[in-house]
Amino acid sequence: LTLLLVLDLCGVFVFGLSGGLLAVRKQLDVVGVVVLAGFTGLGGGVLRDLLIGRAPPRALDDWRYLAVAAGAAAVVFALHSYVERRYRFVQLFDAAGLALFTVTGADVALRADIDRAPAVLIGVLTGVGGGALRDVLAREVPFVLQRGEFYALASLAGAAFFVTADYLDAPRTSSAIAAAAAVFALRMASVYLGWTSPGPLDRRKRDAD
Amino acid sequence: LTLLLVLDLCGVFVFGLSGGLLAVRKQLDVVGVVVLAGFTGLGGGVLRDLLIGRAPPRALDDWRYLAVAAGAAAVVFALHSYVERRYRFVQLFDAAGLALFTVTGADVALRADIDRAPAVLIGVLTGVGGGALRDVLAREVPFVLQRGEFYALASLAGAAFFVTADYLDAPRTSSAIAAAAAVFALRMASVYLGWTSPGPLDRRKRDAD
Amino acid sequence: LTLLLVLDLCGVFVFGLSGGLLAVRKQLDVVGVVVLAGFTGLGGGVLRDLLIGRAPPRALDDWRYLAVAAGAAAVVFALHSYVERRYRFVQLFDAAGLALFTVTGADVALRADIDRAPAVLIGVLTGVGGGALRDVLAREVPFVLQRGEFYALASLAGAAFFVTADYLDAPRTSSAIAAAAAVFALRMASVYLGWTSPGPLDRRKRDAD
Repeated sequence: LTLLLVLDLCGVFVFGLSGGLLAVRKQLDVVGVVVLAGFTGLGGGVLRDLLIGRAPPRALDDWRYLAVAAGAAAVVFALHSYVERRYRFVQLFDAAGLALFTVTGADVALRADIDRAPAVLIGVLTGVGGGALRDVLAREVPFVLQRGEFYALASLAGAAFFVTADYLDAPRTSSAIAAAAAVFALRMASVYLGWTSPGPLDRRKRDAD
Repeated sequence: LTLLLVLDLCGVFVFGLSGGLLAVRKQLDVVGVVVLAGFTGLGGGVLRDLLIGRAPPRALDDWRYLAVAAGAAAVVFALHSYVERRYRFVQLFDAAGLALFTVTGADVALRADIDRAPAVLIGVLTGVGGGALRDVLAREVPFVLQRGEFYALASLAGAAFFVTADYLDAPRTSSAIAAAAAVFALRMASVYLGWTSPGPLDRRKRDAD
Repeated sequence: LTLLLVLDLCGVFVFGLSGGLLAVRKQLDVVGVVVLAGFTGLGGGVLRDLLIGRAPPRALDDWRYLAVAAGAAAVVFALHSYVERRYRFVQLFDAAGLALFTVTGADVALRADIDRAPAVLIGVLTGVGGGALRDVLAREVPFVLQRGEFYALASLAGAAFFVTADYLDAPRTSSAIAAAAAVFALRMASVYLGWTSPGPLDRRKRDAD
């Protein structure tokens, strides 16, 4: 339980950083940084809690979530001119958030007695939800929909691994850490090695060019 | 009950097709097809279940919903180069989804002891919700807001008819089929006959031209 | 209780006006006016009710909310050529809606035994939520994210004031009116006096110019 709370709060922090940094890149003001950091850091968890019927959502009920999201906004605000130039850091934070929220989403769903297949889906939605909300608000194409990004598939693999490990009665702490590490490694490997999600549709793009 | 489940799953399938086909048209990759098919097919029902306080939503709780949405994505993926050229098919599928979800939305609301006027509204929101979510994610103007489309009005007419028939104790199976057929017929007639929703505002547009 | 209901319905009306007027400005048709008036007028309250776990939301459960939102759409429809030219009226209505919903959002959260810090946040989300939904649907940059607008901060100040007054056992009616008046005054003063939200990030913008 404590481990999962720590993972969840780490996810809020790194996703909050990514939201705040997008606000800086879009030349928004202080409020924009706070709003985007908050929606990105807390949005996935709120969506998860609404889907499993937990109201009010943890993010509004537990001051630590608000504090961590505010801390992420403050860090962006203080350091943005430094951090912004390090775009690799942004991708790193985003991949970490995706990994952490995928696992906490699936874990919360399993604890709420959701079936296995929906629990995998809730893990993926928790992982990608905050970022999708961020991009819709900032009028970007949601990252998860961007052509060729190996993003949702990394989350899906980790969520499926975690739920399967739970089914096999693996110790939850170990499998949570292994699943998060797997999502993070898959996502970062795709960025550095240029993996893309499979695309039989690619032929069409060449035709269109 | 069984009839409504069948209608609901048919709605998931045809809306899933329309979401997947939009992803193909926007040159998204495989993940984009699956994500848009899933959000379009399941989004309206999830919204409906959140509004009536049912958590987790049926779409996450019942594997048949996930399977049908995945099937729609697979069909789009396999046949997209064929289906895409048949844009009339897309309008047909979309009209069918609007018709089916309008009726199942209103029916679920009535069974959850929602009052009649809100039940009509929930029918309309269920009918138009998945498509609106699809268009926001894909950065299109939501269809329901597009100037002159006879879309929400068709849904409203069907939902009002279905709820009125329920008030008059008409047999629910017959009135569900009649209401869905009416929405479908109204929407397709508007496409083929060029109906538009009434627009006293049209004068303003001419002035602006 | 009655006071809060009146404030809530007034908020629905003025936000409904702002949504309908945006639809007119975007040259949408009648349906667009009704849809945007409805989402803007009712969206913040629906979000609030979902977050505190009240389903169905008040806006769907109580015919007066639907009637007031429909009335706002009808007023826009009847008077749009007159009202549209008075853009100051739009800002006035919007500021009034922000003020009213901030207070009713925080009040509903407190009555639902939400803690103080989350209650402030729910007040702000209720105040800015309907307008953000409106702008996402109409493909505008959400007002709350627009650079330099003193909007979320006005709501935050009012919500914090109201929740603090409640903590100090001030009479709720007086503090509700005072908090709403403060949000409205802060927002309108920022519009007329050219206040902007604080921006250490401004330096970056000059650098970029």
